Amino acid sequence: MASPAVDFARSNQQRFLNELKDLLRIPSVSTLEEHKPDIRKAADFVAGELRRIGMENVEIIPTKGHPLIYADWLHAQGKPTALCYAHYDVQPAEPLDEWTSPPFEPTERNNNLYARGAVDDKGQLWLEVKALESLLKAGNGKLPINVKVIFEGEEEVGGEAIAEYVRKQKAMLKADFALVCDTELFAPDLPTLCVGLRGLVYTEIEAFGAKTDLHSGMYGGAAPNPFFALIEIIGKLKDSKGKVLIPGFYKGVKAPSKDELKAWKRLPFNEEHYRKTEVGSKVLTGEPGYSVLYRTWARPTLEVHGMPGGFIAPGAKTVIPAKAAAKVSMRLVPNQDPDDILKRYSNYVKKLTPKGIETKIKVWSKGPACVVGTDNPYIKAATEALHDTFKKETVFIRSGGSIPIVTDFQDVLKIPSVMMGFGLPDDNLHAPNEKFHIPNFYRGIETICRFFEKLEGK
Amino acid sequence: MASPAVDFARSNQQRFLNELKDLLRIPSVSTLEEHKPDIRKAADFVAGELRRIGMENVEIIPTKGHPLIYADWLHAQGKPTALCYAHYDVQPAEPLDEWTSPPFEPTERNNNLYARGAVDDKGQLWLEVKALESLLKAGNGKLPINVKVIFEGEEEVGGEAIAEYVRKQKAMLKADFALVCDTELFAPDLPTLCVGLRGLVYTEIEAFGAKTDLHSGMYGGAAPNPFFALIEIIGKLKDSKGKVLIPGFYKGVKAPSKDELKAWKRLPFNEEHYRKTEVGSKVLTGEPGYSVLYRTWARPTLEVHGMPGGFIAPGAKTVIPAKAAAKVSMRLVPNQDPDDILKRYSNYVKKLTPKGIETKIKVWSKGPACVVGTDNPYIKAATEALHDTFKKETVFIRSGGSIPIVTDFQDVLKIPSVMMGFGLPDDNLHAPNEKFHIPNFYRGIETICRFFEKLEGK
Repeated sequence: MASPAVDFARSNQQRFLNELKDLLRIPSVSTLEEHKPDIRKAADFVAGELRRIGMENVEIIPTKGHPLIYADWLHAQGKPTALCYAHYDVQPAEPLDEWTSPPFEPTERNNNLYARGAVDDKGQLWLEVKALESLLKAGNGKLPINVKVIFEGEEEVGGEAIAEYVRKQKAMLKADFALVCDTELFAPDLPTLCVGLRGLVYTEIEAFGAKTDLHSGMYGGAAPNPFFALIEIIGKLKDSKGKVLIPGFYKGVKAPSKDELKAWKRLPFNEEHYRKTEVGSKVLTGEPGYSVLYRTWARPTLEVHGMPGGFIAPGAKTVIPAKAAAKVSMRLVPNQDPDDILKRYSNYVKKLTPKGIETKIKVWSKGPACVVGTDNPYIKAATEALHDTFKKETVFIRSGGSIPIVTDFQDVLKIPSVMMGFGLPDDNLHAPNEKFHIPNFYRGIETICRFFEKLEGK
Repeated sequence: MASPAVDFARSNQQRFLNELKDLLRIPSVSTLEEHKPDIRKAADFVAGELRRIGMENVEIIPTKGHPLIYADWLHAQGKPTALCYAHYDVQPAEPLDEWTSPPFEPTERNNNLYARGAVDDKGQLWLEVKALESLLKAGNGKLPINVKVIFEGEEEVGGEAIAEYVRKQKAMLKADFALVCDTELFAPDLPTLCVGLRGLVYTEIEAFGAKTDLHSGMYGGAAPNPFFALIEIIGKLKDSKGKVLIPGFYKGVKAPSKDELKAWKRLPFNEEHYRKTEVGSKVLTGEPGYSVLYRTWARPTLEVHGMPGGFIAPGAKTVIPAKAAAKVSMRLVPNQDPDDILKRYSNYVKKLTPKGIETKIKVWSKGPACVVGTDNPYIKAATEALHDTFKKETVFIRSGGSIPIVTDFQDVLKIPSVMMGFGLPDDNLHAPNEKFHIPNFYRGIETICRFFEKLEGK
């Protein structure tokens, strides 16, 4: 199907890519206080571009955390309204020495663009902006449908500001559906819509023993060691096979439908290939009796991400630290209530805390799982647009990750989300050598152009 | 008893203290590569002073690690020869924000000198040097006995260089006894000789899972998490009461004699007071059925000092790290062979390592326990000298810490060590706000003067 917007996008690919590189050079790491100016710089960069391409009411909205970016174009009377979401913040780049090229110096290799945030999520934010530019250019300043844009800068730290904003600005953000570009294709060249996400409760258990760090020679055998307390506690949160042992943890868990489970079995997925190429471990782990897709998409899990405290430099320091901590998170599935889970978890940790140790639990992030229906006109139009670009039938998958905002859109704004992402499974999200396959960046732009054009006619 | 050396020491106290401050300002942290120039600076400082006061053959001896310092004065024909040992390296000062005054800017408060290394061991090294200066001054350049000095710069990282040097230079270091100033008084004003030390095996277990860091949303439920592997392993190394579970771990353990145990019961020691003032924890931990002194002096223990890997900065990073590690050490008691223990430990860790994870064990330090007899003339003269200074009977204690060189002196040079230390139990060794009680610095100098003078007449 002819599309002047797609034509424009095609003849501007190199420029679009160069602009994305400029955005990737800004180290907008939202978890680290010292990057606050970079977060602001990235917001300015994105807002400036939205203004330049012809979006209206562009605004950088200050929050308690990192700023939101809003923009709209609302002159397509009688047409649907899309709420375009993405995030301009990124994960920390550590460990730096494992990157082949510097994380904030975008580098092309083998048709991939390597940089922190390349795919998660600056690359996918930028393809939304570039689709809007292409549509506005092709329409002489007009869009086929109404569009509101809301981009956030703290998705990687829990996205509290946008959650609050959505609750407070329901009317302003009202739309017919949300377009969320923060997911991936199930396989290269396979058009994919994500219709389910896991929730997340991310905590830090702090354990306190002696009043000060002590010499393990002098005090070993008498002073409580907070690391041992954490090891005792965490060792009892999950069994060696991966089953979470927190009482009542699985109580609410809603299983996927039989049809959904059947469809997953038809997906081009080979556990052995996945183990070798994606995970690269000797064996895969997790609850017995569930497939990998089931375990990572529809079963709740519990992980430890780091254990701050004590001595971690090379060498030997014989210290019994006064304090140690553990970053522990749980992924949730539909019908598990994050507050309920947090309560059960906190009570259990308290119960497991050995004598002589005090534990406190910090909550860094909290959001429920979300599953969206596949029978609405927006998912249908998206499916058609994907077919135009990829010439293949779209598969419906879930993701094990969490996009709490999708739940907020559903629960607060009462709108479904179209989770249309163009990453690949081996894009190294949150890890060294994150990349975005460059053809998928261009396909993303074209697909959104077609998607909105299709909605104009509906 | 009149002593011109003691008189000289008393009239030079302030200068001695100021010199010690200069030495403490050099951050000679042996565990950290970046402090190598400081280690050298500290060695130059000490060697320069040994030369200045009239010691002979002063030499900075390069090693594979940090340099040794040698000096001697051997003109007291027919008199005994002392081998004076101390170390000029220090532990890292982290966590820096818990220091009241900067760790490398020595500060006086309440008659204490606060600095990293104040008591462990630069302060005690300096009191040896200052005793030699006082004796040389009082003797017009002559010492009452023969003296060899051997100071090391890597005690805090295992002391490999001195161990090798002792083995290779037996003849050069031959003496009648060693004087080791690296221990503490059992209580303020209570003259103390340490006659037993625990050994140490300090390791790092490295655990490897996936080939790269992975997103815990995408891969939680499928990818092995090396932190969980470490938690599973370490949780089985020791039970919750403190009993080490490594098969055969307690096999060789030699219990103290009944007399020694009786003497320990007479020491001014109150577990509740120790818990409150020294440890500052809610309860004390450790093997049931043993007193605190027994547990920390004569029972082997196992501790975790830090768990490098993953994400430890403030905030939430949802990573399943490819690699994590744990610094695990064991304190050993007489008749436990470090090589045997290391083998049993390594085999057990290997056996406990869960599927999908690979573990490797690095050894940072390794040395056996040591107990010295109390019936030799050097211990006796030391006891008399302590009585002259403190006007009290000396108590014989052990220490839970490790000074591997004492074992080397015994096994290789076949000489007993007089472990005469002037620290206090609350001096915060290896912890923030390390201090040295200034009067004990002066008492140390005087006691060594008297000790050597007594040996002249024997």
